[in-house]
Amino acid sequence: MSNNNATSVPEAYPMNGGDGTYSYTKNSSYQRAAANVAKTLIDEVIAEKLDIEDFSSASSTAFRIADLGCSVGPNTFACVQNIIEAVKQKYGSQLPDFHVFFNDHAANDFNTLFASLPPERHYFAAGVPGSFHGRLFPEASLHFAHSSYATHWLSKLPEEVTNKNSPAWNKGKIYYTTSPDQVFNAFAAQFRTDMAIFLEARAKELAAGGMMVLIMQTIPDGIHQSRIPSGIMFDFLGSILMEIAKEGLISEEEVDSFNIPVYSTTPNEMAELVERNGSFSIVKMESTSPWLKVGHIVNNTEQRLTRELRAGMEGVFKAHFGSDIVDQVFDRLNDKSGQLIKQLESSHRQGTQLFLALKRK
Amino acid sequence: MSNNNATSVPEAYPMNGGDGTYSYTKNSSYQRAAANVAKTLIDEVIAEKLDIEDFSSASSTAFRIADLGCSVGPNTFACVQNIIEAVKQKYGSQLPDFHVFFNDHAANDFNTLFASLPPERHYFAAGVPGSFHGRLFPEASLHFAHSSYATHWLSKLPEEVTNKNSPAWNKGKIYYTTSPDQVFNAFAAQFRTDMAIFLEARAKELAAGGMMVLIMQTIPDGIHQSRIPSGIMFDFLGSILMEIAKEGLISEEEVDSFNIPVYSTTPNEMAELVERNGSFSIVKMESTSPWLKVGHIVNNTEQRLTRELRAGMEGVFKAHFGSDIVDQVFDRLNDKSGQLIKQLESSHRQGTQLFLALKRK
Repeated sequence: MSNNNATSVPEAYPMNGGDGTYSYTKNSSYQRAAANVAKTLIDEVIAEKLDIEDFSSASSTAFRIADLGCSVGPNTFACVQNIIEAVKQKYGSQLPDFHVFFNDHAANDFNTLFASLPPERHYFAAGVPGSFHGRLFPEASLHFAHSSYATHWLSKLPEEVTNKNSPAWNKGKIYYTTSPDQVFNAFAAQFRTDMAIFLEARAKELAAGGMMVLIMQTIPDGIHQSRIPSGIMFDFLGSILMEIAKEGLISEEEVDSFNIPVYSTTPNEMAELVERNGSFSIVKMESTSPWLKVGHIVNNTEQRLTRELRAGMEGVFKAHFGSDIVDQVFDRLNDKSGQLIKQLESSHRQGTQLFLALKRK
Repeated sequence: MSNNNATSVPEAYPMNGGDGTYSYTKNSSYQRAAANVAKTLIDEVIAEKLDIEDFSSASSTAFRIADLGCSVGPNTFACVQNIIEAVKQKYGSQLPDFHVFFNDHAANDFNTLFASLPPERHYFAAGVPGSFHGRLFPEASLHFAHSSYATHWLSKLPEEVTNKNSPAWNKGKIYYTTSPDQVFNAFAAQFRTDMAIFLEARAKELAAGGMMVLIMQTIPDGIHQSRIPSGIMFDFLGSILMEIAKEGLISEEEVDSFNIPVYSTTPNEMAELVERNGSFSIVKMESTSPWLKVGHIVNNTEQRLTRELRAGMEGVFKAHFGSDIVDQVFDRLNDKSGQLIKQLESSHRQGTQLFLALKRK
């Protein structure tokens, strides 16, 4: 049932599991900074807009929260804790039990997630394996859905990009930053399809009056992809892969056929997709700037930037190129990180994160 | 919150994870046979006693099923499927979505469980990490709880048994089969405490009218533990450990201090514990005899009996003795399995499984 509503089987790109050197658990401080930027906004929308009366009959047994694309922690635990505190702050002791659902692909390392659940938590916890590009929960069963840094991942690469004879074949690149329009259009179309499926599934799962907060990569209207940090980083990784290809360790076609399945939407585009879906009203939409708060990632000698990038992106590289090449890519990235940091410092770092709070009509 | 109601932190004895030679996934045909014996009884109690009207207001968002102590599959999937089919058979299309919660200790291999979820399932799935000797779900949120071959495991060894100066110190044995009364009494007291906590937690979690089915090891009233298969098998393993101790590979004290944390209750004792709890009425209680249906375990040359015992018990042995000794124990068991099978064939195999169906008042 879980994926019946999706048009095709979504692919999984889990963050690195376990708790080793390159694990997401130890290397997700960018995402944490991003979550911190969102914290105040979440507090605000809960205080001002959450209306528990709206679904008091359906919520008789519990207040149900889902974190969609939660990865392996610890960020998800902090997010959930924050939501619960904000709800308690508003309603005090009249609340039923909290039931929290941690969702990610079945390939996510749930064993690590479960082992690191806060022992003193004041909620009941469950893990939900499966793609959020499809149904995950019973009808009208959720009261608050949250998703941070997950919905900019595509469910799969657009087909045109994987076809050598298509004008969207992304020759010599791994991202659409500086590619022909056809490549960008293919990514955009896939995102619109995915987001339509995502919103349709959540519209079914959220109780009337329930809220959903999405935090995702965005690009300010009018700014080119090549000027924002994600475009710069992905292009930098692409140039390293082309360098390895030129040395003959991999073929250029292997690079051509590889693409990072991530898309930066614009605020206008998201607003339009929400309106087209029709089941949600926009409670708050704001572009924020976590890149202005993550100096510790770029300003130290521990190569934290490389490790963070690796924890989040290694899976998708490994699936295509294998482990040996992944080591090569990130070792070279490490050697050149000074150069990358310079580019990031002169990038457009304002408004690269979208905070979107929706309410189920 | 999950374990707040337990008097101490329960210990975890997960079945073997993964899908290798000694995995529970590949070696749980005894438990499957046991579940098959229970299938007809479950169908019967659902057809005759389930009354969905009782909780129709609470069930507006979903019909919620929990399998407590589910291990890694595949048995749990068959059980859940069976419950859903029986409920559908009775109520047809008026039902809401099914939400199924697979519960086991956090140390259980949930990654394997999630990877093997039936892709064509007609229910929403979630994993719930934590001991069922404590709360796991919001108040009045479940409609059907099921637990097969899990509730005869104790939450921990009784303290007296682990104390060298206590009269319950189990010298030269690893089970209470032929031990002094003090040892048996300590096991029985621990079981009663555990079951009281278990029933109290489930009484809070089940909606009024909700049902719970427990399938567990039992011993017929008036039969001695040394005559039933579990007593015979555990004593056999104990004698192998003493043999290894006599050869000096482990100390006798290591054997004395090791005990298998499993208890076979009697039907009368369970009825008394349910009555003392006060929140449930007994819908059906029946002793069944799966040992009469598992000829394939004892009648073949593949040493299936050894592998099945290992898949279920290895964890508890390994935690105490380490991996090397575990290999020794089960290799020797394999060599002697003819002898063990002979003992099992002349054992009392009737009524060693309890089927108990309860209804939340």
